[in-house]
Amino acid sequence: MSEKSWGGRFEQDLDAQAAAFSASVDVDKRLAPQDIRGSIAHARMLGARGVLSAQDVERIVSGLTAIASEIESGQFVWDPAAEDVHMNVEATLTKRIGEAGARLHTGRSRNDQVATDMRLWTREACYASCARIDALLSVLCVRAQQHLSVLMPGYTHMQRAQPVRLSHHLLAWCEMLERDRGRLQDAARRMNLSPLGSGALAATTFPLDRAQSAKELGFDGVTHNSLDAVGDRDFLVETVAALANCAVHLSRIAEELVLWSSQEFGFVQMSDAFTTGSSMMPQKKNPDMAELVRGKTGRVVGDLVSLLVMLKGLPLAYNRDMQEDKPPVFDAFDTVDASLTVLAGSIASARFDAARMRRALGEGFVDATELADYLAAKGVPFRSAHHVAGRLVKTAFDAGKTLAQLSLQELRAEHAAFEADVYLALDPEVAVERRALPGGPARSMVSAEISALRDRLQARGVDSQAIATRFGVITEP
Amino acid sequence: MSEKSWGGRFEQDLDAQAAAFSASVDVDKRLAPQDIRGSIAHARMLGARGVLSAQDVERIVSGLTAIASEIESGQFVWDPAAEDVHMNVEATLTKRIGEAGARLHTGRSRNDQVATDMRLWTREACYASCARIDALLSVLCVRAQQHLSVLMPGYTHMQRAQPVRLSHHLLAWCEMLERDRGRLQDAARRMNLSPLGSGALAATTFPLDRAQSAKELGFDGVTHNSLDAVGDRDFLVETVAALANCAVHLSRIAEELVLWSSQEFGFVQMSDAFTTGSSMMPQKKNPDMAELVRGKTGRVVGDLVSLLVMLKGLPLAYNRDMQEDKPPVFDAFDTVDASLTVLAGSIASARFDAARMRRALGEGFVDATELADYLAAKGVPFRSAHHVAGRLVKTAFDAGKTLAQLSLQELRAEHAAFEADVYLALDPEVAVERRALPGGPARSMVSAEISALRDRLQARGVDSQAIATRFGVITEP
Amino acid sequence: MSEKSWGGRFEQDLDAQAAAFSASVDVDKRLAPQDIRGSIAHARMLGARGVLSAQDVERIVSGLTAIASEIESGQFVWDPAAEDVHMNVEATLTKRIGEAGARLHTGRSRNDQVATDMRLWTREACYASCARIDALLSVLCVRAQQHLSVLMPGYTHMQRAQPVRLSHHLLAWCEMLERDRGRLQDAARRMNLSPLGSGALAATTFPLDRAQSAKELGFDGVTHNSLDAVGDRDFLVETVAALANCAVHLSRIAEELVLWSSQEFGFVQMSDAFTTGSSMMPQKKNPDMAELVRGKTGRVVGDLVSLLVMLKGLPLAYNRDMQEDKPPVFDAFDTVDASLTVLAGSIASARFDAARMRRALGEGFVDATELADYLAAKGVPFRSAHHVAGRLVKTAFDAGKTLAQLSLQELRAEHAAFEADVYLALDPEVAVERRALPGGPARSMVSAEISALRDRLQARGVDSQAIATRFGVITEP
Amino acid sequence: MSEKSWGGRFEQDLDAQAAAFSASVDVDKRLAPQDIRGSIAHARMLGARGVLSAQDVERIVSGLTAIASEIESGQFVWDPAAEDVHMNVEATLTKRIGEAGARLHTGRSRNDQVATDMRLWTREACYASCARIDALLSVLCVRAQQHLSVLMPGYTHMQRAQPVRLSHHLLAWCEMLERDRGRLQDAARRMNLSPLGSGALAATTFPLDRAQSAKELGFDGVTHNSLDAVGDRDFLVETVAALANCAVHLSRIAEELVLWSSQEFGFVQMSDAFTTGSSMMPQKKNPDMAELVRGKTGRVVGDLVSLLVMLKGLPLAYNRDMQEDKPPVFDAFDTVDASLTVLAGSIASARFDAARMRRALGEGFVDATELADYLAAKGVPFRSAHHVAGRLVKTAFDAGKTLAQLSLQELRAEHAAFEADVYLALDPEVAVERRALPGGPARSMVSAEISALRDRLQARGVDSQAIATRFGVITEP
Repeated sequence: MSEKSWGGRFEQDLDAQAAAFSASVDVDKRLAPQDIRGSIAHARMLGARGVLSAQDVERIVSGLTAIASEIESGQFVWDPAAEDVHMNVEATLTKRIGEAGARLHTGRSRNDQVATDMRLWTREACYASCARIDALLSVLCVRAQQHLSVLMPGYTHMQRAQPVRLSHHLLAWCEMLERDRGRLQDAARRMNLSPLGSGALAATTFPLDRAQSAKELGFDGVTHNSLDAVGDRDFLVETVAALANCAVHLSRIAEELVLWSSQEFGFVQMSDAFTTGSSMMPQKKNPDMAELVRGKTGRVVGDLVSLLVMLKGLPLAYNRDMQEDKPPVFDAFDTVDASLTVLAGSIASARFDAARMRRALGEGFVDATELADYLAAKGVPFRSAHHVAGRLVKTAFDAGKTLAQLSLQELRAEHAAFEADVYLALDPEVAVERRALPGGPARSMVSAEISALRDRLQARGVDSQAIATRFGVITEP
Repeated sequence: MSEKSWGGRFEQDLDAQAAAFSASVDVDKRLAPQDIRGSIAHARMLGARGVLSAQDVERIVSGLTAIASEIESGQFVWDPAAEDVHMNVEATLTKRIGEAGARLHTGRSRNDQVATDMRLWTREACYASCARIDALLSVLCVRAQQHLSVLMPGYTHMQRAQPVRLSHHLLAWCEMLERDRGRLQDAARRMNLSPLGSGALAATTFPLDRAQSAKELGFDGVTHNSLDAVGDRDFLVETVAALANCAVHLSRIAEELVLWSSQEFGFVQMSDAFTTGSSMMPQKKNPDMAELVRGKTGRVVGDLVSLLVMLKGLPLAYNRDMQEDKPPVFDAFDTVDASLTVLAGSIASARFDAARMRRALGEGFVDATELADYLAAKGVPFRSAHHVAGRLVKTAFDAGKTLAQLSLQELRAEHAAFEADVYLALDPEVAVERRALPGGPARSMVSAEISALRDRLQARGVDSQAIATRFGVITEP
Repeated sequence: MSEKSWGGRFEQDLDAQAAAFSASVDVDKRLAPQDIRGSIAHARMLGARGVLSAQDVERIVSGLTAIASEIESGQFVWDPAAEDVHMNVEATLTKRIGEAGARLHTGRSRNDQVATDMRLWTREACYASCARIDALLSVLCVRAQQHLSVLMPGYTHMQRAQPVRLSHHLLAWCEMLERDRGRLQDAARRMNLSPLGSGALAATTFPLDRAQSAKELGFDGVTHNSLDAVGDRDFLVETVAALANCAVHLSRIAEELVLWSSQEFGFVQMSDAFTTGSSMMPQKKNPDMAELVRGKTGRVVGDLVSLLVMLKGLPLAYNRDMQEDKPPVFDAFDTVDASLTVLAGSIASARFDAARMRRALGEGFVDATELADYLAAKGVPFRSAHHVAGRLVKTAFDAGKTLAQLSLQELRAEHAAFEADVYLALDPEVAVERRALPGGPARSMVSAEISALRDRLQARGVDSQAIATRFGVITEP
Repeated sequence: MSEKSWGGRFEQDLDAQAAAFSASVDVDKRLAPQDIRGSIAHARMLGARGVLSAQDVERIVSGLTAIASEIESGQFVWDPAAEDVHMNVEATLTKRIGEAGARLHTGRSRNDQVATDMRLWTREACYASCARIDALLSVLCVRAQQHLSVLMPGYTHMQRAQPVRLSHHLLAWCEMLERDRGRLQDAARRMNLSPLGSGALAATTFPLDRAQSAKELGFDGVTHNSLDAVGDRDFLVETVAALANCAVHLSRIAEELVLWSSQEFGFVQMSDAFTTGSSMMPQKKNPDMAELVRGKTGRVVGDLVSLLVMLKGLPLAYNRDMQEDKPPVFDAFDTVDASLTVLAGSIASARFDAARMRRALGEGFVDATELADYLAAKGVPFRSAHHVAGRLVKTAFDAGKTLAQLSLQELRAEHAAFEADVYLALDPEVAVERRALPGGPARSMVSAEISALRDRLQARGVDSQAIATRFGVITEP
């Protein structure tokens, strides 16, 4: 007959295939540290409320502490037949300390237990991912500082558009990552309420002190409805959505690294340490890390969909479907965390080719806007100025010239307002410096943003230079 | 030759199918109010900086104001050939006020313009959805107050589990909705920075005062990187993810309404005003509104995926792919907003069958936990108490009895700790009242949560009773 | 210095984190049997074309055969540093047989190699899943035969609608599964072309005989474009889409098992061997297997999205992103396969409660359509007949009667066409038997469909009775 | 009181917001032609079976025929209050022809009616999309023929890899599209069974001849289970999955057009008729059509997810959730159809820059594989040959030379097997021609594939040259 925790009214053991199908310990054993901390807090609270004797509490706490160490060191033997992490821990505890172990589950259900574990785990994972984002930000901050003088074409529609600084481009990535960080922080804050004491769905008749266990576990308070506390996983959807947003950002950074690594662009050379070759083609040096980061975006979006589909249409409160919350959450964190780290290393060690970028500025008429702005500043309505510039681009293109190579006469043939100072406006260095609005590419603006980023990191306790060094940031271009 | 805003260097008109494929005015005209407010703020700021004359500003502002009224009243004639909302408005303006209209676009690009429009629109849509959530919360708050005394079985795994209050269940829905509201607020706050002044991708050479236009438009500040400001749509992903979370919540509420409306449950009777019949089966009264709410969840999840797929792997900054951000965002808001409203009406007018719910409590051994808790409270280790209760359930089931119908002798046959007071513990009313933890179903706890909800709504300026009345809340059961 | 297969032009080893990030052997070692069969076929073909000596071929084939056995028996030692399954196998081979091993990769690239492996693996996985579908069909076929006489209410909108046979309902599930099977077969057929010989992207200069290796590997022919053959994974999208369709079907079957297991419906009692209990509530017997099947649907839909996102916007031909094709494909098959099997066991051992189903037919006016059809058959236009029946439902409902309890007088009060034979029409047994169209619930029709299903299974070599027995089908209700 | 088709037992009208929420006529009126054909077939069959008089049938058929013309010409007035397309048509018919109209719904339900409509519509949409695929294939076929002599670098990992023909690359796109076509054909075939006669869920008591109406509607037969026929939409999932696969293919083609249009690649110049400019930057010529095609992929993947989420966990048979099947299906077809057409026009009018492609072959060591193959052909084990070639790439790179610029002495310094004929092998023209395997880039192979494609199109009745001409295919490069 069954040794399961719930075996009382059952006459037959679980079918072997069903047991394998429903066992979760391979996945949820990752929750063991949180599970044990939760159990310790629960036991202490039961002791404080007189539900457990001081002696029982002491036995439970020391028993669980020992188990935690064994798990951490890899000595603990997991029993797949014991269903899940909770039962593995509790059964081992009871085997060792006897009746006191069997009292631990008083006033608790696996439903509020696992909800507590998941909130603790996810909260901590959010903070850990924020630290990895900070590391990538640190690398980008240092590299932006290094390349403050490098100009490159900015693109829209993958067409050369206007000149910017490489640093400005790297800072755009930083803005994206800062918001990702903000979303993870918000998610961590919103989930930070203790479900312990919600029982299976309707709280419990035991006189628990929910605030005590919440406080011991670092929660900001307790949840306000027992049915909701055990029956919802929206905090996981929110978290994985934040990770999906981040993964999409990483895919965009990766796309640019792949593009810039191509022979056609040639803007960057990834280090040998972050590229691989081909088994057939001896010349290949492929930006595999960036490609993998880009490709793995699919996983995280898939994880998000997985959670949403699982939850759709479920009645309250707990349903076993929810066991399927763990694989996508673990996978999304693992994927994004590894991607952040490998990108930090890739970018720290990449060599940017300033000359190639500068050369690209000379082609593609990225100075055409300057012509239009020049006229508009002289009072020509912008729409007309834009048309004049468009025609001059065509003239130059047909003549195989750049705009700066057109004579003043040729310019004046399209509009009389052109004067000799127009050639100054066409210089990319000047063009960039004239874009001196907040958020613009002028040196002063970019420099201020780099400082602000460094200060923000500092305020979070992050020494950007030290971290960049740890990632092997190179000091040459 | 082309009359497009960008026609200068083009020799050939856009292909008719390509024009139809790329035209967006049918969709983006919805942004017109925001677009015009943005243009007015931009013009005023250009005036303040001396880029436009006071007279030009005045002409632009009054011209745009007139267009806005025409659009609102439906008199404005949209021209699909004019590509999008921006060009429709600007072309009409210029036709009417001449050169001043052609100066409006100075120091601006459609790239920062549409980014501004979308942030304004979405910020306001978030607040509007929050108001709709508040309306549904108001209805639930009033109905929870009405049914404070009604007991029902709480379920896990769709099996009767333990007794709760109907109000407790309705409040669980409220908790879900409150978090959805919080996420929309967070999204609105995070996106509330002005991209105006970012130009096409690299700011502009004109001496804009970004802070001024930001302030006039109600933004909390300005964006910090021009490439990022025109090239990212993560704020839409965040918003639609919040809506998807909400839609999944609504699907769960809808699922319960469908279940409860079934002949098998019979817990609720939806009003004729929110049900429909069958073209073939005369007896049918179908909970179509709830089914549609549940089914429409797919749209919102689809909208979220749509955005994520669109953005995946895009290089910076603006790419035309991003035109596809609008349909999913509009659809997600429309769907969730309508679902919230139709649920508010459905729930306001539904009749709950307290007797049927109470009857359900008498079957299914929902009092078995009381037996186990009873023993545990007498010092029997919980795991043993649970086994005893399980065996007694089996005994009762085999004998066709409820647990309360077992004699004290029968109870004692399983464990000697049972005494006569056990029968009191089995009374559902008692069982619920003993669950008097925060977040639990006891009357005092539920009552406190109802008050807290009412107060929160009040603090947001929402009179829950008045709103429930507007939704036709019924006062009988 | 690097020992990688592609190390020639590299000066620096791969970064450790990058190596961990990009290593795939933990996942792709599952392709080992296919990889080795592919290599053997390639080697033999190279021998036949004179590119390899007979001796080299012999050494390669026996070396690979030995490795295959070691892998199967679990003795093979995988080296994560060797990147992937291909290099693990080849490196081991070369270590053992020397230069002949280093010749194996002649005229081949990992790009066409892995494309071949994935096609072989997926083709076989499709067939294996079809066999599992056949097993579930077998169980359903036997149970449908057993319960041919059991009537139950059919539902629409989760409202009782019209009477059907339980067998008819079980056969509806079979129809769904048959189409899933058809889609997997189509996918397997469409992918069954050999990419071997496509090289890295542009075929090879060696005089391969692509048809020979294709034939040896059971392919129907060879692919027609080398860039496409190494650069597309649409066959995986197609396959996983078929699995997602199937998973959604299984979620619907599971939903019905969960509903029917509730105390409210009570139509089925799942066996102890396929249910679990609660750690807190002793009375619970939860349909966890069905819930898990339903919940795991999210995984498969997530897997599908994962693949689509990964492929979106990738230029030809091979990109490293494609390494991410394996996890979702393996996961989707594992999930659906296990779900099929656990459902087969669950349904084989479930007890259907014919009395409870029959009782449900007596409530809910499921005979109202009979009234309308009765009148329509007497020449009353259907729309009028439907209205009359609707009003009679209301009359009966208000009087607390069933339709059959209304007197002839009461019926005639609504329409004069009613005569005494109307009561016969209201008998569910009669009502069902009168629905004797193909695909309808009449006994003859259902019986014919059961036979047809049994015959189809037979034609595929499946003995449905034997398989149902193996799944422990019960012979009582 | 309600005038709805199902009003009999209802006392209250539908709430206005609920009516708006549930009305579908704006969307489903697109089914009108199919709905009317279905009704005509149903009426004729009822006539043949004696259920309707010949006169009634005649009135119905001519009434419906008239309505169909009015709908086609846009004269028909839709009434949103009449819920859906079915009721709009039937109510109008009955208003015009009286009682006969009210008899049309005999033996039918909206459930089997809409299932029939959707199958008819989708089947036809599949064929129409196949025709659009054929048009794009025609353009590609003609362009491939035109550019048979043009060489370009083939890429993997977006790195130049080996030389191929432009035609070979265009044919890779054709392979992808051919499979998409095959999937749509399979979907159309599998869904081609008539659900008519399945009634609401349990067939009907009227003596219908299901085969007759099926035949008249072009179905291959009838469905085999009434519950399944009205309660499943897997055929839509299959179809939209095929469209999603196609959309992803189009996103890949679009990505390459965007890349090739960049100044960095410069492989193609899109026609003015398929590009647009910038409102700020006069020089821009943006590949917007390709970008939009790429961006719209998100919609189609979103549509697929939408359907899967909607269906997940629905019990049989019909549920109102299924009303939500139409928007994603219509949107997916519209999106893919328009994308196919705009791509056909874009590619027909694009100018390929053969010189630029050829120049790209001279850089990036795309001939390194030739060196390795040269050695392998001389008996050097491939792995060693690959290493030698890798080292020579490094030597050349460090010396700023191409491989062909290395002296024989330099080559021999790495391996003694090199002889003077090695330089011939390095010529791209020779390298491509030596890849003369089926599916390879040699002229003979590519030419054969072009012919085979042209023949396949011909066999489907498609004159590829005529269609390409209609799309304005240019005849110069």
